[in-house]
Amino acid sequence: MKVLVLNCGSSSLKYQLIDMETEGVLAKGLCERIGIDGSVLTHKVPGKDDYVVEKAMPNHEVAVKMVMDVLVDPDKGVISDTKEIAAVGHRVLHGGTVYSDSIVVNEDVKKVIKDCIPLGPLHNPANLMGIEACEAAMPGTPNVAVFDTAFGMGMEESAYLYAIPYKYYEKYGIRRYGFHGTSHKFVSGEIIKFANLPEGHRKVIVCHLGNGASISASIDGKCVDTSMGLTPLEGLIMGTRSGDVDPAVVQFLANNEKLTVDEVLNILNKESGILGLSEVSSDFRDVEKAEAEGNHKAAVANAAYRHRVIKYIGAYVAAMNGVDAIAFTAGVGENDASVRKLVCEGLSYLGVKIDDAKNNGPRGVAAQISTDDSAVKVYVYPTNEELAIARETLALVK
Amino acid sequence: MKVLVLNCGSSSLKYQLIDMETEGVLAKGLCERIGIDGSVLTHKVPGKDDYVVEKAMPNHEVAVKMVMDVLVDPDKGVISDTKEIAAVGHRVLHGGTVYSDSIVVNEDVKKVIKDCIPLGPLHNPANLMGIEACEAAMPGTPNVAVFDTAFGMGMEESAYLYAIPYKYYEKYGIRRYGFHGTSHKFVSGEIIKFANLPEGHRKVIVCHLGNGASISASIDGKCVDTSMGLTPLEGLIMGTRSGDVDPAVVQFLANNEKLTVDEVLNILNKESGILGLSEVSSDFRDVEKAEAEGNHKAAVANAAYRHRVIKYIGAYVAAMNGVDAIAFTAGVGENDASVRKLVCEGLSYLGVKIDDAKNNGPRGVAAQISTDDSAVKVYVYPTNEELAIARETLALVK
Repeated sequence: MKVLVLNCGSSSLKYQLIDMETEGVLAKGLCERIGIDGSVLTHKVPGKDDYVVEKAMPNHEVAVKMVMDVLVDPDKGVISDTKEIAAVGHRVLHGGTVYSDSIVVNEDVKKVIKDCIPLGPLHNPANLMGIEACEAAMPGTPNVAVFDTAFGMGMEESAYLYAIPYKYYEKYGIRRYGFHGTSHKFVSGEIIKFANLPEGHRKVIVCHLGNGASISASIDGKCVDTSMGLTPLEGLIMGTRSGDVDPAVVQFLANNEKLTVDEVLNILNKESGILGLSEVSSDFRDVEKAEAEGNHKAAVANAAYRHRVIKYIGAYVAAMNGVDAIAFTAGVGENDASVRKLVCEGLSYLGVKIDDAKNNGPRGVAAQISTDDSAVKVYVYPTNEELAIARETLALVK
Repeated sequence: MKVLVLNCGSSSLKYQLIDMETEGVLAKGLCERIGIDGSVLTHKVPGKDDYVVEKAMPNHEVAVKMVMDVLVDPDKGVISDTKEIAAVGHRVLHGGTVYSDSIVVNEDVKKVIKDCIPLGPLHNPANLMGIEACEAAMPGTPNVAVFDTAFGMGMEESAYLYAIPYKYYEKYGIRRYGFHGTSHKFVSGEIIKFANLPEGHRKVIVCHLGNGASISASIDGKCVDTSMGLTPLEGLIMGTRSGDVDPAVVQFLANNEKLTVDEVLNILNKESGILGLSEVSSDFRDVEKAEAEGNHKAAVANAAYRHRVIKYIGAYVAAMNGVDAIAFTAGVGENDASVRKLVCEGLSYLGVKIDDAKNNGPRGVAAQISTDDSAVKVYVYPTNEELAIARETLALVK
């Protein structure tokens, strides 16, 4: 059985075709500049050269048709008929307060995705276009919506409600949703198996540290707390996002810099984080290099980043009243042994002990990096949102 | 030696005259509605009836003169001459990035207090008026500025910098300052003595839980982190303040409710917190009563409040990589045994054990409330900001 996974942005479309027997990727690719001059599709098949098609893609429907064409192309393709695609799994950003799980798309589901556009103004319209394009290109093939917010729906009211007038929750659904939910659910679930955590000892913290970054606390796979909130801005310091700030910073900047609130939020989302503090780059590798070369602001940016991660881990240990395993995932989490080591050194009060040899082991491989006598097990575990989406999709259609 | 302590608001003035030999309060009182019709001074001397004077106070200078008059009044007063006042200690909200300690006021100090008005727009002008009124009323008597932000100046850059473009720190001093600093410094210092914490074991967390609420982490009396930030809005859920929210909540409310950023911040400061969530009251006693009567929103507000306190304690334990003592202070912290118990139950992973008998002991008295075998000592310790200000003042003038 083969599942196609789609992740649609406003002008882009990422896809993976996954063979669910082996969970291997048959083909993957990216359509860029959809609806803009210079559209291009890049198609990758393991073991073959990349195949690039430059052709106008005025909308997502045309892009999806091009993906279908290339998948069945006798030379570049990997299947002989699109009927081999059992289902399409769509990454959908926001399911509001309605969906706490993945669901087979019907008209009601599409209405909810549309209703949630105010909560996900950049992503939900594109996600909906992707679904409708698949409906047009492959009538009868089921589409499954996998919501990035679903995992966070496991939180209790005391964790998800902001302490603002209750009416705003009722009127607009203003609450903490959490994002990267598919990754947090996947990694926390995998860690329970990988670490063989027994029942009653499944308090897991997942640090998803990439260009975007978030942390989750879960017990037995159920989300207790997660650091992103109403939007992906809240929480950790990220590549260009500030994470937590006093909300009065928005007011101060708006009034003193004569900016609109949208302009301030644009600064907090796109010019802040590691980039804003270091004045070097949003890429952690560049900032670490600058620190090594003696750049003070780069050093402060890295220290502030780790301070925030350490505080969130500590907060989530308290939120669960204990922790059994901590996992690092995503770009920085999987590849930056130095960040993992420095963060874990700040957690020695928990009895966390890092095994340097294991921590410096091969990249991108699931591994325990704590010593065998560490009171809390620490892991690197590569995330795989596409596989997670494919599995959720398969589970709903088979 | 006698020290007068003044805390000036925009239309109010609180005072205490303290005998520094005994550290006892000789007299205290409050001027209300300064600059407004219906000004009134209420003067209290221990063991005597309150003395109320209703008389026009067009400005702080008149108010200070009335305080002097009542202090030396042959019948209602407690001194025979204002010359007995060795110095005046002023609570000053904001010392910006300039002052990390109390200081004897001169023209330079007054200029800094004035320069910091953008950071403390409501309080710094009133604090300055109080100082100038004392200079006029008691020429030659030293005035000492005790900054509420001084304690937070002990934080490292990695803790005090927001991850926003660095230029805004340089241009405006946008950073985390922390407030309630006088209380945090006082209680953390007292706890080291009261608990007899040996050197190397002085990691202290102070939970200042009142209508405003904040938490600090300090090592050996030096601030490591504290929950209020650029303004007293950040951090814990308070009586009417939201504490932490996704900064995008400001944008969402502004755009969807058609509010200015100032109007949104007003909601976050004055209509949020326990009041906003419970829709009952900003007074914790009312909300606890409502919860006991089965009010669900009240129960959620209380649970969210405790969840936030527990997370901050956990975060600060991590920020210090351990903790030796936790102290509860201020209105709720000193008087609400139930909050203390429920918070500490969430910290059993640290080996915290509460002694119920001690926790339910007499109110407003410094006491250990953890069991003798608790891995972390827990205390109630009454804060006394006026005494703290008087001590700082005495230390600088004697």
